[in-house]
Amino acid sequence: MESLSNRMTTLNSMSTASTTAPSDAASSPIDMHDLLAPVLEEMKLVEEWLTTNLIDESPFVGELLNQIFQAGGKRIRPLVTLLASKASLTDPAVDQVHSEISRLHIILAVLTELIHSASLVHDDVIDASSTRRGQETVNKKFNDKLAVLLGDLLFAQASICLARIMNPVVVGIYGQVLGDLCSGEISQMRQQFSTVVDWDAYFQKSIKKTASLIAAGAHSGAILNARPNEVVAALKVYGEKLGLCFQIVDDVLDFTGTTEATGKPVGGDLRGGLITAPALYILEAGGAPAVTLAKLIKDRQVQTDEGVAEALELIRSNGGVEAALALAARIGEEAKAALSILPDSPSKASLIGLVDYVLVRNK
Amino acid sequence: MESLSNRMTTLNSMSTASTTAPSDAASSPIDMHDLLAPVLEEMKLVEEWLTTNLIDESPFVGELLNQIFQAGGKRIRPLVTLLASKASLTDPAVDQVHSEISRLHIILAVLTELIHSASLVHDDVIDASSTRRGQETVNKKFNDKLAVLLGDLLFAQASICLARIMNPVVVGIYGQVLGDLCSGEISQMRQQFSTVVDWDAYFQKSIKKTASLIAAGAHSGAILNARPNEVVAALKVYGEKLGLCFQIVDDVLDFTGTTEATGKPVGGDLRGGLITAPALYILEAGGAPAVTLAKLIKDRQVQTDEGVAEALELIRSNGGVEAALALAARIGEEAKAALSILPDSPSKASLIGLVDYVLVRNK
Repeated sequence: MESLSNRMTTLNSMSTASTTAPSDAASSPIDMHDLLAPVLEEMKLVEEWLTTNLIDESPFVGELLNQIFQAGGKRIRPLVTLLASKASLTDPAVDQVHSEISRLHIILAVLTELIHSASLVHDDVIDASSTRRGQETVNKKFNDKLAVLLGDLLFAQASICLARIMNPVVVGIYGQVLGDLCSGEISQMRQQFSTVVDWDAYFQKSIKKTASLIAAGAHSGAILNARPNEVVAALKVYGEKLGLCFQIVDDVLDFTGTTEATGKPVGGDLRGGLITAPALYILEAGGAPAVTLAKLIKDRQVQTDEGVAEALELIRSNGGVEAALALAARIGEEAKAALSILPDSPSKASLIGLVDYVLVRNK
Repeated sequence: MESLSNRMTTLNSMSTASTTAPSDAASSPIDMHDLLAPVLEEMKLVEEWLTTNLIDESPFVGELLNQIFQAGGKRIRPLVTLLASKASLTDPAVDQVHSEISRLHIILAVLTELIHSASLVHDDVIDASSTRRGQETVNKKFNDKLAVLLGDLLFAQASICLARIMNPVVVGIYGQVLGDLCSGEISQMRQQFSTVVDWDAYFQKSIKKTASLIAAGAHSGAILNARPNEVVAALKVYGEKLGLCFQIVDDVLDFTGTTEATGKPVGGDLRGGLITAPALYILEAGGAPAVTLAKLIKDRQVQTDEGVAEALELIRSNGGVEAALALAARIGEEAKAALSILPDSPSKASLIGLVDYVLVRNK
């Protein structure tokens, strides 16, 4: 029981964050405790499953899983998956068909988080990152080799979960998500240090690297619930828009966040040549700021402390952050609008509230 | 068409190896051309599929796939998959039900090779290997980062193939295979430089790292063919035994092979602390050779040129290689025996011949 209570730590701290962390509450008018309420019991089961060794009997694998999931994480993906599953349980047209979240929905939420965690562990190797969630990354703390193995292990756990769901359509959706994650990573690598303003490339990369997985979680529950195509499609749109919103805010946090809050070095994206929405707005606007920023990027000055500080200041002082946040807000409204097809429910209300939570998050 | 004909190179050189390479023919009485004959056309389709980009439209992904699969490989796994699929097409009890290998069998063979290739690319990172199949590994030629991404990309391609098969039982089998690959890798890491004679641990590691995937290919075709449980189970046993046989011979080649033939450094396993069948026999037999070998391993002298040469010579001159080959031969006979449930066919004959091919291979 002690190990189980340890596993609960993340969830408990998450659900009480707004009351125990005034600084967080001050910056976020959305209470995560309220958002979690409709699926609180189910989220506890998700935490338990995440560290359940499905691969073999070795305690070593269980230990590795514990280490990864006790490092924390926002658990946005399983939350979206469970809320969307619950919000699509009833079909107003034919009265109430289902009334409970099943074991399959829990597994769906778990595998969505497993894939996310696996891709983070491998991304940290690919990007040679040294901190994540305020802790040393696996590749930094140990080495690339263990990080490769751990990522593979998480993907394997996800595959075993996926097999247990026994739904070929859902298998297809997640198969494509794995492809999108790789494809998004490749696009990102190929766009490094490019100063061409290509919004389509930015959105495509963001959808593949982030939104595709969130969208999979958001609409696969409705597929398991045998909901009509238009309900499934609406939840997919919700997930994609929420995911894009999440990614844009993440990109903004590279400019406005503190290492203390985000657990990542400020300006890290820019240093790595990753040109995101705030910078794209400045480059698109033209004039002296665009010319200076393009030069800082092209000459790789953003890889130095002085260069990155200059670029960050330039983008901040010319409204790049505000423009990116306004973009995220517009996409967030589209995410909410997609939910109009669903009957009102506490879960639907949480899905709407989650958009606002994502928009104002500071970590 | 040119790129397709390039893709065919591996297969063509494989099917004509015994006539064009006298030295190979001399050491191998089994003609690979004969073994391939029942599924030659299907194997050509497999080659084509292996480099088909299922993930997105980017030519870059296609190029990466080309690079990996043009490096060669024995293609044993797709061959077993197709032969076993074809050998289990007819059900003698109810007359002939199926007569053709379908697209699904081809995809099954492809995904089996994709998983194998993905695990090799990641294993080379984990083991910090610099040569594979006589060529520089991806991690050596480029870096760990690209190797992680390439492996993930191959796993993603495999997942998309798996989804297309639309069979939940097959999804479950391959999900467990992915778990076995990680679990086998972990066991291998934890047994490094151990001089405890633990045959069970050796077999379990070999099943998980090698035989599990071959067995998946060997019996999943029969599942798609809706064959009775006993036929499916017999093909699974065949695949596991063939896989074990393959792994033991692979372990022997670390002692007897040449870098020219295997494309890997001789004694590489022993240097890395991987204690396999030939060494286990010496350690088990006791006496002076066992004491000397244990000391060379425990003191990490096998990591030096002189130490590994002494250990190799000790194992060779005390019959370790012959004992391991005799073990492989016994397991090979069990693999053949498992096939007795199938009606005679050219594909069944090739499955039997493949055991002998694996036993006498020198690369």
